[in-house]
Amino acid sequence: MASSEQVVRHFQEELEQLKARLLQMGGLAEEQVRLAIKGLVDRDRAMLARVLAGDGPLNALHIEVDDRCFTLLALHQPMAVDLRAIVAAVKINTDLERVGDLAINIAEAAQKYVEHLPVKKLIDIPRMGSIAQGMLRDALDAFVRRDVDLAQRVLNEDDTLDALKTQIFRELLTYMLQDPSTTEPALELILISRHLERIGDHATNVAEDVIFMVSAKDVRHHAAEG
Amino acid sequence: MASSEQVVRHFQEELEQLKARLLQMGGLAEEQVRLAIKGLVDRDRAMLARVLAGDGPLNALHIEVDDRCFTLLALHQPMAVDLRAIVAAVKINTDLERVGDLAINIAEAAQKYVEHLPVKKLIDIPRMGSIAQGMLRDALDAFVRRDVDLAQRVLNEDDTLDALKTQIFRELLTYMLQDPSTTEPALELILISRHLERIGDHATNVAEDVIFMVSAKDVRHHAAEG
Repeated sequence: MASSEQVVRHFQEELEQLKARLLQMGGLAEEQVRLAIKGLVDRDRAMLARVLAGDGPLNALHIEVDDRCFTLLALHQPMAVDLRAIVAAVKINTDLERVGDLAINIAEAAQKYVEHLPVKKLIDIPRMGSIAQGMLRDALDAFVRRDVDLAQRVLNEDDTLDALKTQIFRELLTYMLQDPSTTEPALELILISRHLERIGDHATNVAEDVIFMVSAKDVRHHAAEG
Repeated sequence: MASSEQVVRHFQEELEQLKARLLQMGGLAEEQVRLAIKGLVDRDRAMLARVLAGDGPLNALHIEVDDRCFTLLALHQPMAVDLRAIVAAVKINTDLERVGDLAINIAEAAQKYVEHLPVKKLIDIPRMGSIAQGMLRDALDAFVRRDVDLAQRVLNEDDTLDALKTQIFRELLTYMLQDPSTTEPALELILISRHLERIGDHATNVAEDVIFMVSAKDVRHHAAEG
């Protein structure tokens, strides 16, 4: 029979592997978002098609991570921060899978967009894409390093993304009103900016889970606590 | 010290309370969606304002349910279907909170919509609202009763919602192209239909969790499994 020290070490190794899988998922999700936005900007249909066909590895990891979480909960009886880390992993796993879905949504909207003449030179949407990707990366780094300060910075970035979304909406609305022939493609750009906003929301969820995991402090629903 | 029979009974009582809280959350979320859509259709600003101010109870329950899940995992060491039920509760809790957020998003878009003249008589959006609410209710009933057949019916309903979303998009695009003065309000309706679609997605997530909880069978990512 294993000594309790061996059991603890085994648990910590399993936890490290779980974190490694989540980082891998984060990398895949981020890359899907990057390719979808690059495919949009470069009007590259082949790249967009690759995004649409490219969610297999992410989905396989999603199921694997869920399994690992169940196994860790069932075989060990983690307490305190370890328990919070596994429950956080369950949630983060869901968030990362949704980011993958949103990359697909972006690629689908981009495919429709490139059927039309360009509405404008795309600057703010790639900027939103970079910010959202950065938030996702930082949130996962914060999870792995249990870094509350970094998680807090992710929460602050969300306002930037929100401001860009509003700016993009106003600008595209102006285009649509001035030249109705831009309506269809401009609509797709608005939807893409909403998808990017939601990717930021998922990064925010991850950051909130990190803060709760480390400090057992709930930073959600500030207003409700008032 | 408590007998093991008492411990088991205590655990089952706690699990029942957890389910009751999730049902209560579901009821609140559903009511927020109902009011947001009714406020939109009736152009009732007071009702929309009530939705915007009304997420406090839902957010408080969200935190309470998370706490209950942690306590159940830490104090008891649930196995098999009980463990899957608690992990499902963690996920469902997140889904219901997001539905509450989406009701807020709908009310915000509706507030902007009612600043304009009506684009059209609203028929398909309230229909989407009813379907999404029904999916949510059925998914939660399926969770409480561990009813896989009902969960499966929720998954099937999602296609109806998706078809309505596409139809609404096409119709509103036609309005915008024929009369650009409808562009701004029509855009808000398109965004509202997207929010309703996402509520259906959350109901679908709940239904998938129910199927996994009962049968330990993963119905996600069919395509990826080949």
